[in-house]
Amino acid sequence: MDPSSLQLIIPIAGLAAILFALYLARDVLSRDTGTQAMQDVAATIFEGAVAFIRRQYTTIALLALGGAVVIAVVIGTVEGKNVADTDIYGFDLGIRTGVAFLVGAACSMASGIIGMYISVKANLRTAAAARRSLVEAVQVAMRGGAVSGFLVVALSLLGVWAIFAAYGGFDKPAQAPFLIVGFGFGASFVALFAQLGGGIYTKAADVGSDLVGKVEAGIPEDDPRNAGVIADLVGDNVGDCAGRGADLFESTAAENIGAMILGVAVYGIAQAAGWPNPQAWIFFPLVVRAFGLLATIVAMFFVRGREDENPMNILNRGYWVTTILSVIALGFVTNVMMQTGGEVLGANGLPSWIWFFGAGVVGLATSVAFVYITQYYTAGGYRPVREIAQASKTGPATNIISGIAVGFETTLVTAVTIGIALIASHWLGSQAGLVNKETGVNVGGIFGTAVATMGMLMTTAYILAMDTFGPITDNAGGIAEFSHAEAGAREITDRLDAVGNTTKALTKGYAIASASLAAFLLFSAYIDKVNLILSRQIAAGTRTAAQGLLTSVNLADVSVFVAALMGAMLVYFFSSLAIRAVGTTAQAIIVEVRRQFREMPGIMDYTQRPDYARVVDITTRAALRQMVLPGVVAVATPIIVGVLLGYEAIAGLLMVGTISGVLLATVLNNGGGAWDNAKKYIESGHLIDENGNVLGKKTAAHAAAVVGDTVGDPFKDTAGPSLHVLVKLLATITLVLAPLFIR
Amino acid sequence: MDPSSLQLIIPIAGLAAILFALYLARDVLSRDTGTQAMQDVAATIFEGAVAFIRRQYTTIALLALGGAVVIAVVIGTVEGKNVADTDIYGFDLGIRTGVAFLVGAACSMASGIIGMYISVKANLRTAAAARRSLVEAVQVAMRGGAVSGFLVVALSLLGVWAIFAAYGGFDKPAQAPFLIVGFGFGASFVALFAQLGGGIYTKAADVGSDLVGKVEAGIPEDDPRNAGVIADLVGDNVGDCAGRGADLFESTAAENIGAMILGVAVYGIAQAAGWPNPQAWIFFPLVVRAFGLLATIVAMFFVRGREDENPMNILNRGYWVTTILSVIALGFVTNVMMQTGGEVLGANGLPSWIWFFGAGVVGLATSVAFVYITQYYTAGGYRPVREIAQASKTGPATNIISGIAVGFETTLVTAVTIGIALIASHWLGSQAGLVNKETGVNVGGIFGTAVATMGMLMTTAYILAMDTFGPITDNAGGIAEFSHAEAGAREITDRLDAVGNTTKALTKGYAIASASLAAFLLFSAYIDKVNLILSRQIAAGTRTAAQGLLTSVNLADVSVFVAALMGAMLVYFFSSLAIRAVGTTAQAIIVEVRRQFREMPGIMDYTQRPDYARVVDITTRAALRQMVLPGVVAVATPIIVGVLLGYEAIAGLLMVGTISGVLLATVLNNGGGAWDNAKKYIESGHLIDENGNVLGKKTAAHAAAVVGDTVGDPFKDTAGPSLHVLVKLLATITLVLAPLFIR
Repeated sequence: MDPSSLQLIIPIAGLAAILFALYLARDVLSRDTGTQAMQDVAATIFEGAVAFIRRQYTTIALLALGGAVVIAVVIGTVEGKNVADTDIYGFDLGIRTGVAFLVGAACSMASGIIGMYISVKANLRTAAAARRSLVEAVQVAMRGGAVSGFLVVALSLLGVWAIFAAYGGFDKPAQAPFLIVGFGFGASFVALFAQLGGGIYTKAADVGSDLVGKVEAGIPEDDPRNAGVIADLVGDNVGDCAGRGADLFESTAAENIGAMILGVAVYGIAQAAGWPNPQAWIFFPLVVRAFGLLATIVAMFFVRGREDENPMNILNRGYWVTTILSVIALGFVTNVMMQTGGEVLGANGLPSWIWFFGAGVVGLATSVAFVYITQYYTAGGYRPVREIAQASKTGPATNIISGIAVGFETTLVTAVTIGIALIASHWLGSQAGLVNKETGVNVGGIFGTAVATMGMLMTTAYILAMDTFGPITDNAGGIAEFSHAEAGAREITDRLDAVGNTTKALTKGYAIASASLAAFLLFSAYIDKVNLILSRQIAAGTRTAAQGLLTSVNLADVSVFVAALMGAMLVYFFSSLAIRAVGTTAQAIIVEVRRQFREMPGIMDYTQRPDYARVVDITTRAALRQMVLPGVVAVATPIIVGVLLGYEAIAGLLMVGTISGVLLATVLNNGGGAWDNAKKYIESGHLIDENGNVLGKKTAAHAAAVVGDTVGDPFKDTAGPSLHVLVKLLATITLVLAPLFIR
Repeated sequence: MDPSSLQLIIPIAGLAAILFALYLARDVLSRDTGTQAMQDVAATIFEGAVAFIRRQYTTIALLALGGAVVIAVVIGTVEGKNVADTDIYGFDLGIRTGVAFLVGAACSMASGIIGMYISVKANLRTAAAARRSLVEAVQVAMRGGAVSGFLVVALSLLGVWAIFAAYGGFDKPAQAPFLIVGFGFGASFVALFAQLGGGIYTKAADVGSDLVGKVEAGIPEDDPRNAGVIADLVGDNVGDCAGRGADLFESTAAENIGAMILGVAVYGIAQAAGWPNPQAWIFFPLVVRAFGLLATIVAMFFVRGREDENPMNILNRGYWVTTILSVIALGFVTNVMMQTGGEVLGANGLPSWIWFFGAGVVGLATSVAFVYITQYYTAGGYRPVREIAQASKTGPATNIISGIAVGFETTLVTAVTIGIALIASHWLGSQAGLVNKETGVNVGGIFGTAVATMGMLMTTAYILAMDTFGPITDNAGGIAEFSHAEAGAREITDRLDAVGNTTKALTKGYAIASASLAAFLLFSAYIDKVNLILSRQIAAGTRTAAQGLLTSVNLADVSVFVAALMGAMLVYFFSSLAIRAVGTTAQAIIVEVRRQFREMPGIMDYTQRPDYARVVDITTRAALRQMVLPGVVAVATPIIVGVLLGYEAIAGLLMVGTISGVLLATVLNNGGGAWDNAKKYIESGHLIDENGNVLGKKTAAHAAAVVGDTVGDPFKDTAGPSLHVLVKLLATITLVLAPLFIR
């Protein structure tokens, strides 16, 4: 089969996914919307979410606009000064990069807004469906989530493809990937603020209303008398749903672009050797992801099961279908696209594509491994959660100590899995025989890690659908509680909510794994880009050949070491700001809810309706104010260090920042998830004291577990996910601003 | 002045310090020992401490013996196989390294044991002195601490000097530094287990007896009815005193040896240029430290003040005298020893020694900076502690969240200070004009960081004296409380105890700063050692010249990146094991004290004496069992990674492990210190509610602060200090086992 015709699959799969998302959206919207009481609550949540998103995205849009102008001017001036040839690399490149940045930002914002819109519609339909059937409720929630999943991945695929085409990708495939890096940076930039703002909002509302409602006033969670409860429900949507959507949008976009840059090196080899369709090596990432989308569309039809089945099994069924179809598609695509002109170059007499197919399978296997690792560490019933629950018997201090120990411990298996995946995919790729005849460099190894990353990304749409399932079912539970729905409905939404907690944790594990695999490929892309600039400068005579190219990032150099130290520090400092922002915003909520309890005495006996909108408004304003500082620190630190210490040092910041960020995010996500489920473990009556009595709700052990859960909230839903974005932002920012760091 | 005669200062200062320590010890022992009740408690503490130390050091001695044999065999075989010349580098080197390891281990153990012996004698004398005079109590405690400080530093100085001399340092000064690295490894090895065992013991006893006494039984801290209280007092000595002594012993030894290895490169230049006394560049670190000891002896006479003075000022006076005398001595030593044969080589027409003097001052300034940084972050009255105290108003969860945010935040100023110190000292050194004429390499930069580290180490004895002041005064308070001493005595010991908390925190900041500065120099020493082996192999024909030397540690290499990831992971995993060990041991204590309360009902009304010895025994056994796993993980991980991924990759593990370890230790130490002092801040009545009422002891805010303090205990006194040791162990282990990683 001709690889060129296979490239047609990119727009076809992208459009198919969008049409399918529209079909799912129509299906969800056409469903039963339950009782009037349910509709009232849902409408209030919808209003609050829209109000926040409108203000948040207005702020982000303005920041992005400013960013684009600065990028255009800086890149234009610096590049224009550095090289003689100002035709394509001068001011023109500045404007192109700025435009790509804006397009990336706009696509990211669009997918966040649309996904969240469906999610706040699906919550009500899920609650209504839960009055009749578990399977129907699962389907509504999962389809609502899938709208987000398909839109995010399709927009990222089509966006990268369109900007690549617009920047002459079909004529000059070796040049275009470097021109579109702005797209990835735009996506990261939006994701950073979307995740920070949403993450601060959701956890401040959660922690604030719990502390003032459950702890101070002694009323249950989601009780309508608590003025903060609507803000809490709004938070699930703007944080978990819109935030994670933006996070995975930029992952797929940035990693896709990075893989295309690495493809350029193989393209050079293919061209020199006269292989047919050398450009297929550059298009490969786009095609693979297109097939991943198609696999996910098929898998959606397998999300079905029995009423008495564990809902997690229903979701897992679809995940396994996606994974298996992806493996098959990967074999097909590598076989068709990775042609070496009839020569067999790989080790052991195997063709090159076989080796890369192996690398892609390593990527898919890594994502499966992370699903199970996360489950072990954060789901009830396994040793870690049980350990935390046991420690709760001796109070909040031992609960916290135990949770921290578990969080720290999870780095072991995470790091070892990533290490094995990196070495295995690198080794497999290096066996493919892709050696540059001129330089003698084997480019297959690093391309192997790129293929592994692409393999992993094939399932992104499904993973994201499972993730959005979480906030939808969480909200459905809130709506059921709030509207005093039948006990059976609440029971079903509770079961779905527990599953949603697991799927949210899995997605974070997946995001971490993809960030780590991608780090290496984005880092190599950065080196390729720096060397492109350096060789142009050498050709233009503004740099001597003796100064050489960037062939290694030497940790033994004091600048590199100090920059690496700054990268590791940035991760902690950024997390500190994010965690503190939650505390500050929660304080504002507590003060307001307390005021309402005091000044509106009718609230407690249900004769007065609390002013929910005011709390929503206060949370919105506080969260938006608080997201600015950590965001600015994240963007400014690599720029300052890069300008001061140079292009080799900033690579040290990037690598060590990535390692530190991935591990700290692992600690925060898994620690937080384990604390959450230790509380649920106790609430489900699994904790027994020495005399055989069950230690359930309202015991000191439960109170201790609630403290752990509250501490875990900003860990797992604000700082942890924001770190995923930070890690990828570091990669895209250095990639785009590389010219700035070269003196 | 002739540098050779200056070398005589090494044994002179070492012996003078030992004699001075003996004088101080006699002085302390001759003091008033208070009432019979006081003597009884002190005797019980003494017994418990001796019992623990005996068993702990027996275990450690056996482990060290095994380690020495393994090292001798491994180094002997591997080196013998690798090179043709088996005379000095073959099996002989194995045995020499093993012997050096044992001598280092023995010196470290001796200084730990003697220091702790005096400390458990000084506590009683301090308590007795507190009945009369604040200044006298300060002096007794400080002199007791100084015995430890002087012995540790003098033994490290004399030990390195003696083994250097024994291995032919005076004949072949360029070869001997590589032969004595085993000494540093032995010291680190002992320090690791001493700090882990002591750290687990002290915090398990603290957390365990607080939870079962204060929380469950509702009796005050240090109450004689609590069977765990003696174990708690014993813990202060074995953890804070013996543990930190071993930590700083290995710091000074390892960093000294590393600096001597770097001196070899300068020696080569000096020899080639025919400068007088080239060996002075190798002896320099020993001489500088000798002068540091002399400066500290003088400073001890300035530890005096008025009765109404803040005791911290009295201690600070001595510190500043040490620092100022050290600056003067540094100028003198650099001037005499760093001779360039009359040539002026430095930039701006300045002689080389001036530039290195500047680098040394940077080191001293860094240690002063860390003293003030730590004070800002952990002492009451500044923003961070106030913030945590305020957050306690809304319960334990917000207290914990706030403390974590503060802990994370402290990495910013720590990393920036270290970064500036590294770049400044490297730059100053590079201006000294020490260029190897053959290779064109400027070796001055890295030697500048070595001089800065040595400058910082000049004050170690004083810092360690201040540190040991902490557990002595803490114990004195316990003795006063336990023996129902007069209120005035208890008031004085309380004030000293608060100062002791600050000095303990300062020492940790100092240990962190020295570990970070030293990381870079030990890392360079490792590269020098690897290249020594590689060039011998090239000369012997077992390696081709094309394979080359180790000139860079390339983070863009997949093995280096994965090893770096393992280094960062090790830091978390090790901390997880250390923290969990405290929890497990504390559980054993809780169970036993509960049993005594249940089976000996007379305890509560003072008619029955609790069985203190049994708790001490249980804690001892549990702590010793729990220290093994983290210790083994720390030693085994670098060996496994090095053997699997090779000598370049392990350098990545070393560097990134150091960065991660230093930052995580900063988080744990400062977070823990801030939590501790937030509790004290509330207890002193500084926290005010919205109506202007003081929120002191027995309020919910105080209870929340107690939770934070308990969480911080294993952070700041077990995991944090153990990480200091881990970081330096990584450096010495790679240095010694380098031959194992070269294939």
